[in-house]
Amino acid sequence: MSEDAFVEHRKLIIAGSGISGLSAAIYAARSNNEPLVFEGDEPGGQLTLTTEVDNYPGFPEGISGPELIQNMKTQAERFGAEVDHGIVESVEADERPFTVTMKNGDVYTADAIIAASGASARTLGIPGEDDLMGYGLSTCATCDGAFFRDEKILVVGGGDAAMEEANFLTKFASTVYIAHRREEFRAEDYWIDRVMEKVDDGEIELLLNTEVTELHGSPEEGVDHVTMVRHPDGHPTDKLDDPETETFDFDCGAVFYAIGHTPNADYLEGTGVERDADGYVVAKGGKGANQTATDVPGIFAAGDVVDFHYQQAATAGGDGVKAALDADDYLEELEREERAEPEPAAAESDD
Amino acid sequence: MSEDAFVEHRKLIIAGSGISGLSAAIYAARSNNEPLVFEGDEPGGQLTLTTEVDNYPGFPEGISGPELIQNMKTQAERFGAEVDHGIVESVEADERPFTVTMKNGDVYTADAIIAASGASARTLGIPGEDDLMGYGLSTCATCDGAFFRDEKILVVGGGDAAMEEANFLTKFASTVYIAHRREEFRAEDYWIDRVMEKVDDGEIELLLNTEVTELHGSPEEGVDHVTMVRHPDGHPTDKLDDPETETFDFDCGAVFYAIGHTPNADYLEGTGVERDADGYVVAKGGKGANQTATDVPGIFAAGDVVDFHYQQAATAGGDGVKAALDADDYLEELEREERAEPEPAAAESDD
Repeated sequence: MSEDAFVEHRKLIIAGSGISGLSAAIYAARSNNEPLVFEGDEPGGQLTLTTEVDNYPGFPEGISGPELIQNMKTQAERFGAEVDHGIVESVEADERPFTVTMKNGDVYTADAIIAASGASARTLGIPGEDDLMGYGLSTCATCDGAFFRDEKILVVGGGDAAMEEANFLTKFASTVYIAHRREEFRAEDYWIDRVMEKVDDGEIELLLNTEVTELHGSPEEGVDHVTMVRHPDGHPTDKLDDPETETFDFDCGAVFYAIGHTPNADYLEGTGVERDADGYVVAKGGKGANQTATDVPGIFAAGDVVDFHYQQAATAGGDGVKAALDADDYLEELEREERAEPEPAAAESDD
Repeated sequence: MSEDAFVEHRKLIIAGSGISGLSAAIYAARSNNEPLVFEGDEPGGQLTLTTEVDNYPGFPEGISGPELIQNMKTQAERFGAEVDHGIVESVEADERPFTVTMKNGDVYTADAIIAASGASARTLGIPGEDDLMGYGLSTCATCDGAFFRDEKILVVGGGDAAMEEANFLTKFASTVYIAHRREEFRAEDYWIDRVMEKVDDGEIELLLNTEVTELHGSPEEGVDHVTMVRHPDGHPTDKLDDPETETFDFDCGAVFYAIGHTPNADYLEGTGVERDADGYVVAKGGKGANQTATDVPGIFAAGDVVDFHYQQAATAGGDGVKAALDADDYLEELEREERAEPEPAAAESDD
């Protein structure tokens, strides 16, 4: 690395400032590991997309996503964590300490790393999206479903997640609608069967070969209706000029995107950290100590970058705490080894 | 079961009202699983023993243990959870629904059970203990260590936990003292080595063949000093009349008991739920769904009854949430099977 780019050495770098990263930072700071937390390009993570968090244990009246994140940030900083802007570009794990290169070219070294960089929900990039995210538009049925009791709820997607979310949302909705751009779902039969049962019951209705092109509403009033297009052969947005493509408005009280998440872990490429076919980091799991260990000693992982299933604030927080405690064990052991093994004498390097 | 004793059938019974049980209850209630939570004989669990919780993510100024518990209880009840007095005595898992028998003889049936019954820290049963628990006396170094910066801290115990706690507390204490009733520690060599290094450094001092017989102080001022006894052959409290037994006062600012925990899971005896040698429930763990499953379908477990390692409020909460989501999957599947398989016709039972 060029000397100009080198900023400093840290005991612990945490990539990500969502719930898992900040929970880890609170514990790491209290254990005197002086963590440096990089916010990445979605400071605060997925939870900042949620207006009202009703299910994070400890807040009986709920708390807004951004406020919960701000609380955790303040708490971490109170104990000495440093939270800084910056996107981790790559990690070099062949030698210790690790070398962490930032997107802006800054270079840090670190004795341990916690990957808490989350996953980003995919969006459609259509008009209305930015204004209504968290105000009727959501990417998490478990988080937000209960806000829309007895409303018409539209789920967008055709995979397992969409089927699962639609199924879950029947607990609350007057009717759940699934908009899918093709005729066939690509979900597992198991999920399709469950959805089709509820279609028979009248709890779910399908809008096939259909895509949403615009969301209408306001942050104050939520979603009012959406504009959709349909073509008998599917993928209607590719065929907007086709006379068979029809455009129509559709009333609904909430829209849930379930078109997938992408874990943010490309910076671990080449470190030896195992990732699954979808890019999620594989942590050790199991029981007892070291559940958040990856297969590179000194690199730990927690939150949505690992967890493709539960993805809740409380589970990300709990796993972030585990990561900080695992990293502390690792750092203590490292210090102990360094004390036991004195620096090589200067004479040796002169040979 | 006698008909008199039968109270009602519930979809989901949660044993335990600590952080994991209440976190599970919040999610289970929101998923319309109408959980019934039994408080057991330590309502609120271990956290009620902690005056000030500084490390539960979300409360930058800290929150008292009892207040955090009360918040979660209110939150769970807000979504429809029912929290009731009662100690689960046994669970019958040979038939479904499960039969849950209470200590007072009441009998419930349940489609699913979450074991969130925690573990109880062992105490010495000496004078001063009840008054000072949470006010200078603690059973959790990770929770409370940071409150006693630059104080003399006394750790009681001689096993792995005591060594680990003592080692951790050197981060904060002016000096850590370990009082152990025998000459030799029963901890692993690994831990003894780490402690002995710190004894050499002057960070830890050992008080061997020594036991604490009384704690002095007040809830307002915390621990002031303790009374101890020492006998050259160990186990001094068994030899109080022996002329070689000396009694002395010892100044310190905090006392940490590390004499073990006992998981509260005896009611699962005979269900087929696997427990380890120390009595902790073995949950599936791993990645993806169903991490809190035991090897009895329909019985899930979370919190300190499973976790003998991290034992934090945030980790118990996160795992409690996982248990509620796992139980919801199970209950949904059960409902689905029941719909698919109609009741046997009345005629059949007349044959």
